Amino acid sequence: MLGGMGPEATVDFMAKIVSRTAARRDQDHLHLLIDHNPGIPDRHAAIAGDAPSIGPQLAAMAHRLELAGADFLVMVCNTAHAYTQDIRAAISIPFISMVDLAVDALRDYEVTRVGIMAAEGCLRAGLYQRALQGAGYGCVTWEEQSLQAFMQLLYRVKAGERGDELTSALRELAAELEQRGAEVIVAACTEIPLILGPGDTRVPLLCSTSVLVQRTIELARETPPEEF
Amino acid sequence: MLGGMGPEATVDFMAKIVSRTAARRDQDHLHLLIDHNPGIPDRHAAIAGDAPSIGPQLAAMAHRLELAGADFLVMVCNTAHAYTQDIRAAISIPFISMVDLAVDALRDYEVTRVGIMAAEGCLRAGLYQRALQGAGYGCVTWEEQSLQAFMQLLYRVKAGERGDELTSALRELAAELEQRGAEVIVAACTEIPLILGPGDTRVPLLCSTSVLVQRTIELARETPPEEF
Repeated sequence: MLGGMGPEATVDFMAKIVSRTAARRDQDHLHLLIDHNPGIPDRHAAIAGDAPSIGPQLAAMAHRLELAGADFLVMVCNTAHAYTQDIRAAISIPFISMVDLAVDALRDYEVTRVGIMAAEGCLRAGLYQRALQGAGYGCVTWEEQSLQAFMQLLYRVKAGERGDELTSALRELAAELEQRGAEVIVAACTEIPLILGPGDTRVPLLCSTSVLVQRTIELARETPPEEF
Repeated sequence: MLGGMGPEATVDFMAKIVSRTAARRDQDHLHLLIDHNPGIPDRHAAIAGDAPSIGPQLAAMAHRLELAGADFLVMVCNTAHAYTQDIRAAISIPFISMVDLAVDALRDYEVTRVGIMAAEGCLRAGLYQRALQGAGYGCVTWEEQSLQAFMQLLYRVKAGERGDELTSALRELAAELEQRGAEVIVAACTEIPLILGPGDTRVPLLCSTSVLVQRTIELARETPPEEF
């Protein structure tokens, strides 16, 4: 698992992996190898072209995890999926895309217009827009001003802030997507579940972290046990 | 970091690392490499001689983490420290002992008699008793019946149980150590902080997880930044 982007989102992912694994004792749980690397530079600046690509760093992390014995890789950061090709080119094991999984999971909803709650780099790179349009959905995104408001909230969450004010502000941003026609909203940023839950939106909220947790558990269960 | 023993204790450790690191943005946080390996067999059976040593498995995990680039190692499981020699023999980087750190941290308390809340294997291996006696402390441990009661609680916590009944039962076990003369109690099992906090004991409660978290942050701050 490529993690640390951000740190609390990675802890949230791990906590959900552990709590959602059917287990009565330690040995029933999944074996995870985690490169928790918060030092990866800001993804949004790189995608905007204001900083070098972080593809080589993500590729090096992925390669290291493969060498250490990983059977497949996941990455707990939607925006960093802009570098999926760099990662896949560096490894011979599967890299499971959180973006593809989230879009696949929308099949459980009878909807045509999907709201995307995502960070700047993720939206600028068009990760969800491309995947959603490829699957026949319409995309609902924020006006530029709301996106900038989301980025400010995001950096406050990353700085450790929590509380009703942040949650209310994020609910308003979700409501904007609903008003613009979203029939379901994808929480396409792993910091979102730290302050927003399923009850906080009028339309269903599909959490990309939860989708990745579920699929990681399923895939790990299908993988033959390792030698030790 | 050697983790997964148990899974929730590892998540607790990571969450504390993240929340106690002075950071305003992702890049201020520590780079962690975690082998979260809950498949390591039961430590207590191995220490009792009822199952093969788990030393070789822990040594292999440690070696793999060194190869993957770790600068130093920590392990989030007190009982598994019975295999400290196997781990140290397999690596050329430092392995920081949680047991030694916890005993060192007792210098902050003016006490001579230390209560040890630890699991069966940890007590049978004499990990804390030896370190405490070497530092001039007297040790207070449970009667066999209470130790068995603790083990039952421990496996319930590992199975995901939480709640007042478990916490009350653990408070009573702590009170037994107080009645037997403990002036401070070491929470020498990483599942303890999942259900017991500082306010739950009459005498001070020193949490081995928290001590390891603090030292890990300090040591990581002293380590020069890696190449990527």
